[in-house]
Amino acid sequence: MSGKLNLDEKFSLFADHWRPKVVASLNGQDVKLIKVQGEFPWHHHDDADEFFLVWKGTFRVEFRDHIHRLNPGDCIVVPRGIEHRTCADQEAEILCFEPGGVCNTGNLADETFTAHGGVKI
Amino acid sequence: MSGKLNLDEKFSLFADHWRPKVVASLNGQDVKLIKVQGEFPWHHHDDADEFFLVWKGTFRVEFRDHIHRLNPGDCIVVPRGIEHRTCADQEAEILCFEPGGVCNTGNLADETFTAHGGVKI
Repeated sequence: MSGKLNLDEKFSLFADHWRPKVVASLNGQDVKLIKVQGEFPWHHHDDADEFFLVWKGTFRVEFRDHIHRLNPGDCIVVPRGIEHRTCADQEAEILCFEPGGVCNTGNLADETFTAHGGVKI
Repeated sequence: MSGKLNLDEKFSLFADHWRPKVVASLNGQDVKLIKVQGEFPWHHHDDADEFFLVWKGTFRVEFRDHIHRLNPGDCIVVPRGIEHRTCADQEAEILCFEPGGVCNTGNLADETFTAHGGVKI
């Protein structure tokens, strides 16, 4: 019927960067965990706002005209249509809320970074 | 355009229990913070699944036939239509992700606990 999950346990199950893992789905939305390190390409999502919560580490959300630096407990909404990229100098762990089926690179097809769909863990 | 927020800072802005505060809205969904202590009444939501993440403290999500005990970093989805209640022996801080406009007591109108709509902070 329903079960609890633990974020640290779920993060321990994978090591790859920039590959979102779906840990829960509800109301057409996904709850995803992402390990990040390095620099993600610039992109936007035409039809999806994204919510990020930093669970561990330090994370940057960069827009063309300003940068947000986020630490654990910091959150941000990236509105649909707004070009952005995400970066982390060292590995960070991120929780993301967004509609089910969103592609991580949005309008961009990138050989390295695009991860279609969501892998459930 | 967008701004970051910090969960600890937002939780420090209010003290009342069982009164959800909306800190972000996206894709028709709300991200709410709730301080809980005591026992919430049994209820269900006809059209809304609910996601809870424990930020601080210990929290119980009780169903009629089983109980989940959650600590910081633990999450749970309460599916729509399923009767449940939430409890905390001592104050706990909870993040909730659910559709915008959901009433906290669902099908139940309760003089003490029902908080219509969401107060934004």
